[in-house]
Amino acid sequence: MKNDTVLNIEVEQIKASKIDQVDFDNLDFGKVFTDYMFVCDYSEGEWKKPEIVPYQPITIDPSAKVFHYGQAVFEGMKAYKDDNDDVWLFRPDENFRRINLSSQRLAIPEFPEEFFFEGLKTLLQLEKNWIQKGFGNSLYLRPFVIATEPGVSASPSSDYKFMIICSPAKAYYSGEVRVKIAEKFSRAADGGVGFAKAAGNYAAQFYPTSLANAQGYQQIIWTDASSHEYLEEAGTMNVFFRIGDKLLTSPNNDRILDGVTRKSVIALAEDAGIDVEVRRVSVKEVIEAAENDNLKEIFGSGTAAVINPISGFAFQDKKFELPKLEDSYAGYFKKTLMDIQYNNSEDKFGWRYKI
Amino acid sequence: MKNDTVLNIEVEQIKASKIDQVDFDNLDFGKVFTDYMFVCDYSEGEWKKPEIVPYQPITIDPSAKVFHYGQAVFEGMKAYKDDNDDVWLFRPDENFRRINLSSQRLAIPEFPEEFFFEGLKTLLQLEKNWIQKGFGNSLYLRPFVIATEPGVSASPSSDYKFMIICSPAKAYYSGEVRVKIAEKFSRAADGGVGFAKAAGNYAAQFYPTSLANAQGYQQIIWTDASSHEYLEEAGTMNVFFRIGDKLLTSPNNDRILDGVTRKSVIALAEDAGIDVEVRRVSVKEVIEAAENDNLKEIFGSGTAAVINPISGFAFQDKKFELPKLEDSYAGYFKKTLMDIQYNNSEDKFGWRYKI
Repeated sequence: MKNDTVLNIEVEQIKASKIDQVDFDNLDFGKVFTDYMFVCDYSEGEWKKPEIVPYQPITIDPSAKVFHYGQAVFEGMKAYKDDNDDVWLFRPDENFRRINLSSQRLAIPEFPEEFFFEGLKTLLQLEKNWIQKGFGNSLYLRPFVIATEPGVSASPSSDYKFMIICSPAKAYYSGEVRVKIAEKFSRAADGGVGFAKAAGNYAAQFYPTSLANAQGYQQIIWTDASSHEYLEEAGTMNVFFRIGDKLLTSPNNDRILDGVTRKSVIALAEDAGIDVEVRRVSVKEVIEAAENDNLKEIFGSGTAAVINPISGFAFQDKKFELPKLEDSYAGYFKKTLMDIQYNNSEDKFGWRYKI
Repeated sequence: MKNDTVLNIEVEQIKASKIDQVDFDNLDFGKVFTDYMFVCDYSEGEWKKPEIVPYQPITIDPSAKVFHYGQAVFEGMKAYKDDNDDVWLFRPDENFRRINLSSQRLAIPEFPEEFFFEGLKTLLQLEKNWIQKGFGNSLYLRPFVIATEPGVSASPSSDYKFMIICSPAKAYYSGEVRVKIAEKFSRAADGGVGFAKAAGNYAAQFYPTSLANAQGYQQIIWTDASSHEYLEEAGTMNVFFRIGDKLLTSPNNDRILDGVTRKSVIALAEDAGIDVEVRRVSVKEVIEAAENDNLKEIFGSGTAAVINPISGFAFQDKKFELPKLEDSYAGYFKKTLMDIQYNNSEDKFGWRYKI
């Protein structure tokens, strides 16, 4: 195996690509990974020289702190290929900023900006063939950091591993999505880690979500833990409510993820002259609007689905179906965002990042 | 390497023990591990045959769900050796019950009771030499479960690994412990996973604790996330307050760990005729008691330290030192518990479990 250098990051070349074994028309989200992975270790107070190696299992002590104390954070990003075979990222500076905010809250050392961007660029040049053309196709990128120090004392790790792994993704279509509004379980506490992409935030939602699934709901819209009166986020998506022609979404706080798609939707809404209010949204006003036929749409925003329209929701024993609109806000934002992401339209906000 | 069977669990024998390399007089907590580890894998809907193998790193896909979504739970237990070289556990049924409660909340399949106890027994017979005699010495046992399915979709894993690793421990003495009462950060939400030994609960405390450490406090006493008016637990310990001769501790709820040492202290207090109240304890009443010289003790309870007396605490800009008592409750509970654990006294509650 020979070593090669691209853009200053050492690359250990694969012997043969796995790409021919992949059925790109039938991809389950996040199951197939590309040929390479980016790895950078932290020890003795510094991030060491990053490298790109063939995708492979890692060897790690069973006492590593990530296994016991969940000291781990991640990001989700996508690379898109346009009709000219150019590859683009969408607002990667936001993901970089956020992974370090998440790391700070989890007592993980911040990752250097140049390693992050050089790593992404080198990896995407190597994996260019894995990014399929076509509206909706993408390469999902998963940067993450795990605590690797062996030892079970409950304190921050001395050693970490930062990695980026890549998984080809099809246009995301989850079928009709109905959601349940949380009334007992919660996702995050005031003063907690809900705003961070901390690993533990996600496992904590699995059981309540499985109960909702069993009742026919695909997701939960979380409410504030103190009163369950205010709508927060959906765990893997931020949520928007359209009442009349007004668009409502919860402000960021220490319980709610500062979603990149969320803030892009707000910017697009303002730009399109849509009346958008970023404020606490009560369960009560949403139910009242639904009862008065004034609730036009609910949709989620996130990297995986971009925009995910919601067909119906339940709160306690009340169930509501949402109208199917011809000219929905959800449809408008999805098309407008994807046109920017796939280099099909002008990028007036400067959100595209060329590889 | 030959395979052997003890108590029906397959054991892959070590070539040579590492025990001679260990300085038992100078042990950092949780850094040195014994010769063997217990491993049991879950896949296709069932826990497979458990085995005991030489302690070694594990090989795991970088996309394994534990790394991304923190789907992991654990327990902490100790094995004690008495003067006759008999080995004892303390209320292991409670740890077994709790790891499955934690697992349920994290959507992890429950572990079979016979695997848990057979695993412990076989492991402790193999590691008997690692359990040092002497009051305060023990073998710390760490059962844990991690989600191993490769794939980054945010849903419960199909595959898991249950392990038990063992680390020899000295009598725990942390020096004088001063604590800060939380007023901004929180540990757990109502309806969240605070009651579970979920991995993510611990990393979430590292950053606030590091801020407290920098101000000279070793730990934080967490308060309720909604109002910060009520005292909850200390993250790795439950907490007790002695006001006059009355002992107070917070009731269990979905934010507070149902500590085995905590419930043992409550039972011992009732048995000794100490007036113990399990109810919400407000910051206000503890501060008032401290100001009136009526606050006699604060102590933590947990497996690692057994009982950890607290020398002082701070709330906002107020600082308090606690008196040093000759006949403290903390001293009484610690001695009484350890006498039971080390088989030095009658076991009237039936808490000892012989290996």
